[in-house]
Amino acid sequence: MTQFIGVEDMRRLVRSTGTKAFLTQLAGYVRSDFSRWAEFEKSARVASHSRDGVIELMPTSDGKLYTFKYVNGHPSNPKIGKLTVTAFGVLADVATGYPLLISEMTLLTALRTAATSAFAASLLARPNSRVMALIGAGAQSEFQALAFQAMLGIEEIRVHDPDVLAVDKFMTNAAGFGMNLVRSPSVASAVAGADIVTVCTAVKGKVAVIDAAMLSPGTHINAIGGDCPGKTELAADILAIGKYFVEFTPQTRIEGEIQQAAPDYPVAELWEVLAGVKDGRTGDDDITVFDSVGFAIEDFSALRLVHDLTDDRRKLLDLVPDVADPKNLYGELIAGPVLARTLELA
Amino acid sequence: MTQFIGVEDMRRLVRSTGTKAFLTQLAGYVRSDFSRWAEFEKSARVASHSRDGVIELMPTSDGKLYTFKYVNGHPSNPKIGKLTVTAFGVLADVATGYPLLISEMTLLTALRTAATSAFAASLLARPNSRVMALIGAGAQSEFQALAFQAMLGIEEIRVHDPDVLAVDKFMTNAAGFGMNLVRSPSVASAVAGADIVTVCTAVKGKVAVIDAAMLSPGTHINAIGGDCPGKTELAADILAIGKYFVEFTPQTRIEGEIQQAAPDYPVAELWEVLAGVKDGRTGDDDITVFDSVGFAIEDFSALRLVHDLTDDRRKLLDLVPDVADPKNLYGELIAGPVLARTLELA
Repeated sequence: MTQFIGVEDMRRLVRSTGTKAFLTQLAGYVRSDFSRWAEFEKSARVASHSRDGVIELMPTSDGKLYTFKYVNGHPSNPKIGKLTVTAFGVLADVATGYPLLISEMTLLTALRTAATSAFAASLLARPNSRVMALIGAGAQSEFQALAFQAMLGIEEIRVHDPDVLAVDKFMTNAAGFGMNLVRSPSVASAVAGADIVTVCTAVKGKVAVIDAAMLSPGTHINAIGGDCPGKTELAADILAIGKYFVEFTPQTRIEGEIQQAAPDYPVAELWEVLAGVKDGRTGDDDITVFDSVGFAIEDFSALRLVHDLTDDRRKLLDLVPDVADPKNLYGELIAGPVLARTLELA
Repeated sequence: MTQFIGVEDMRRLVRSTGTKAFLTQLAGYVRSDFSRWAEFEKSARVASHSRDGVIELMPTSDGKLYTFKYVNGHPSNPKIGKLTVTAFGVLADVATGYPLLISEMTLLTALRTAATSAFAASLLARPNSRVMALIGAGAQSEFQALAFQAMLGIEEIRVHDPDVLAVDKFMTNAAGFGMNLVRSPSVASAVAGADIVTVCTAVKGKVAVIDAAMLSPGTHINAIGGDCPGKTELAADILAIGKYFVEFTPQTRIEGEIQQAAPDYPVAELWEVLAGVKDGRTGDDDITVFDSVGFAIEDFSALRLVHDLTDDRRKLLDLVPDVADPKNLYGELIAGPVLARTLELA
């Protein structure tokens, strides 16, 4: 039997754990998995492109567990009341090949993205960071605010988005977070003097949402939105003053902010900073940039956490047969008696 | 909401349709999809190898529907009461990227393999074929017998397997099929004079289960078991007298019987025979060989059929969220009220 975590199951799990506690645990899982980087099979996404979008499979394995995420990207979906990006994933046992868990990952991806951002900032930002500019008040914004509050001690969020309704939505959702919330009239005013700048816009194309002139010495930039070929958020002039950190260099060179840079532009991978192989921040005036695109190991960490957290409240699907004689599929599965059904533990 | 077809759902679907009717419909879907071969995205499997086995993802798309199959192969699984090969699959809408159906495919793969064999034989075997040798009485054997009875008019099955218990199992399961069943004491006696020879053994390594001297002119060989690197069932001397037909040449050169042949050994793909681009059988004395390894488009056809057949008796999973405002994941999915749950239509 295979465990199933639907959208409502995930919501209940996150609420019962507490969103901040869940984000903090997830960041711990990401940190733990990034600290054993060499154990993972790392491969390119398998993409199927069509006129309206893309469907991708993102597999990885540490030799004990195997995961893959199915994720789509369809920019026109909101016109018909659907999400641009949805996802689900599977966690399987490498020793038997049996799937153990299938889970929604639309919500879980939002959580793992914020947890990974906060993990990266815990390595790279100044420890006394208290003020974060949040450029973009879309689907990712509340998760970023909560993760940085929980893990970095951020006390003030200065939010800016040209979509005023999106800012209204953020202010409403974040009203109970216990943070100082500021509506900023412009990107520059939000960024001025902020310790951390999180950029999570959905703007298509190569757009300079932030440029070098806006930044104060010591800022950490958490760049989420530049995550596919042809989509960036940071002006190229930041390449000259910032130190760039990535998840998995071959993927980020194609999808991240550094698609604007020369192919040999120097970057460090997060796991290298964690392992002490490469420097992170070397002083209070460094401008550090986490050029985030999302990587399969983060999804692995997220599915691993969900599997650990839900072990004793399972909802099971009969996705794989349980037969007495492997040679008798016909007799047991077609001609035989009724099998164990899906169990609904509502 | 995403439709779910578990093992018991699949069993009920096949039984209510009738196994032979299901196999015949599925062969029709395979034929229909192979007749529009150029419309499909064809790619290599994405494999994750480990000490104990392999986990593979097999995606394909025709531009309207996208499918992938997850399949494992773990030879030691039977020692711990598990199946060597299990599978499940997903069918998605290319226009939106939303998954429409998730289905068990352990049983469905057995059905699609037999349906594809019968479809290939309907193109390649002599039309008046009535006697089939069945070498190997394992999990695939009953499905092959039923598919060839339904689509080729096979009336007599001569079965041989060194595992006597497997033959007993086959004879019991097939007793009600309305066919003449013969236990053959050897491979040679089963094959002698048979119109069609189906070879579906699980023998590992390069084994010559059938050789050229056993065959009569005009025989069609349906070679199922040679399906991965290092695993073949036919003696190399059959390459000299047979005409070989494959699903997708690049894959079969690595996985099929022709891994024993020179890289330029001539083969025809089934779709080419169907389209009249290449010859199939050219006379009653030809020895034709379907060198079957299993291809993603057959899984596509199988999921498409299941989706068509189950449209009005859905069991739905909340695998993907339904939100009013795509920018308000947090508010709707974390802070909001209880969502629609999984529906259990038992």
